[in-house]
Amino acid sequence: MIHAARIVSVAGSPDASEAETAFAEELGRLLAESGFTIACGGGPGVMEAVCRGAVSAGGETIGLLPSDDPADASEFVTLPIPTGLGRARNRVVALAGSALIAVGGRYGTLSEIAFALDAGRPVCAFGRWGAIPGVVPVESPQQARDFAASSHEEER
Amino acid sequence: MIHAARIVSVAGSPDASEAETAFAEELGRLLAESGFTIACGGGPGVMEAVCRGAVSAGGETIGLLPSDDPADASEFVTLPIPTGLGRARNRVVALAGSALIAVGGRYGTLSEIAFALDAGRPVCAFGRWGAIPGVVPVESPQQARDFAASSHEEER
Amino acid sequence: MIHAARIVSVAGSPDASEAETAFAEELGRLLAESGFTIACGGGPGVMEAVCRGAVSAGGETIGLLPSDDPADASEFVTLPIPTGLGRARNRVVALAGSALIAVGGRYGTLSEIAFALDAGRPVCAFGRWGAIPGVVPVESPQQARDFAASSHEEER
Amino acid sequence: MIHAARIVSVAGSPDASEAETAFAEELGRLLAESGFTIACGGGPGVMEAVCRGAVSAGGETIGLLPSDDPADASEFVTLPIPTGLGRARNRVVALAGSALIAVGGRYGTLSEIAFALDAGRPVCAFGRWGAIPGVVPVESPQQARDFAASSHEEER
Repeated sequence: MIHAARIVSVAGSPDASEAETAFAEELGRLLAESGFTIACGGGPGVMEAVCRGAVSAGGETIGLLPSDDPADASEFVTLPIPTGLGRARNRVVALAGSALIAVGGRYGTLSEIAFALDAGRPVCAFGRWGAIPGVVPVESPQQARDFAASSHEEER
Repeated sequence: MIHAARIVSVAGSPDASEAETAFAEELGRLLAESGFTIACGGGPGVMEAVCRGAVSAGGETIGLLPSDDPADASEFVTLPIPTGLGRARNRVVALAGSALIAVGGRYGTLSEIAFALDAGRPVCAFGRWGAIPGVVPVESPQQARDFAASSHEEER
Repeated sequence: MIHAARIVSVAGSPDASEAETAFAEELGRLLAESGFTIACGGGPGVMEAVCRGAVSAGGETIGLLPSDDPADASEFVTLPIPTGLGRARNRVVALAGSALIAVGGRYGTLSEIAFALDAGRPVCAFGRWGAIPGVVPVESPQQARDFAASSHEEER
Repeated sequence: MIHAARIVSVAGSPDASEAETAFAEELGRLLAESGFTIACGGGPGVMEAVCRGAVSAGGETIGLLPSDDPADASEFVTLPIPTGLGRARNRVVALAGSALIAVGGRYGTLSEIAFALDAGRPVCAFGRWGAIPGVVPVESPQQARDFAASSHEEER
């Protein structure tokens, strides 16, 4: 693939805390500046914040929606993909990127972490799921961006 | 539903330890004796052991296979269902039962635990994933059977 | 597999005509008498009718539901499996049986026919989709039952 | 969505005829020139040809792969999304665009047509599946492009 985008997956709750929202927005900006396209679930909360950050820096954002209606995507999704899979779309979110970054999140996010690790994708997490074996805990958006960048390099 | 079976989901690794295999086989026997139909991934290891135990007590076993070929089921699966979904079938395993029992297992099992909790199914675990928030750790097949039985009662 | 059930898939519309409903109920009875377990989408219309017929003859019926709630199954489903996949569960319906019988139906049924043929499953149809290349048109429940029985024999 | 891409889905066989390949490549070029992003299965044959055409005109191409490995995408896929769903990813291909264009194809393509129609997406087809009720037959890449463009307008 000579033209292929560098994609990184971002997971997190629709009802994010203020700290998680701020983390996600800054993360989106940093990832876009580093040339990454973001793949996420396309909904509110962490998903919306990371897309808002990415779009503010001119980035592209893929929203893998559970429904069959592209209008369900948040306004900062540039490529809405209505999967029609319900929450089974979490598997697609987990696999879309060369790495997965989790920002807080609940059991839906945990399912994405599990599927990513199961498929050999590197995973880092800010907050709740950082202690899952195999997950690298991160403290800042910069650390998460660096994690994604180095994961992508190793993969090549 | 006047005729509906009582279904419980069982998750675990294809490459189970001796202790996990023994736990799963005894669990299958106990669940079948208590009138439960077992739903699992239909493969080797924990999945095969729980089905072997259930069949030895005259029980029914549903094998939700990742492939599209029913012949991929272990010989103790009485109802092989080739889903053709790859490991996205983990979501179906997680939802099929009124509760989920995890026996050891790795990231595939973790994805099933996450999907079950996400959908409000009670989850208990023997071994590795017992410390996940929301999961009830169990020490014996009897405890796991009692957990499934009481979960099913509460649900009604 | 020494104990494996003989499963046949039945597809059709939630809003069946009277002729389709009568066909499906008689088909369910005949399949159960021939020792088949029925797999279907678990909903109303053709799905409910084929399950009602099967249960009246002491048969088992698997309902592969789009939702994550087993209570969404019709009352004649003996094994409700909430897949949580939305209409992507049509793929599971298509693959569950050693053959697929379509009774009327619309585009959902057509997706099941396409997936079954794609995976090498024999398909027969009463009514609307009988002219799709690769589908065998049938006129009576007896013909459909014989089709399923001979498909199962060939497969062994 | 203020930034959302206009996406159209294209379906067709991995083993396309020469006429289908030529049709698909010209179609890809025309769609990209009209500002559409293409969503397809990401494989060889029609899928590769439509992506090659789109990329030659500076367009973007989303490849929704059945496997979990982005390296399985053809070289003209600019956004490889490994779904890990096997052929159940056909549902995602069907829903990703505001319309579906089928170029030849076999049962996999038929499943995509059925899912698209089931979800209310307009569908046109060159060749084999043009006679399915609800599908608009087209004779040229220009006609197919115009169909996609007018479908997108109506949807807004």
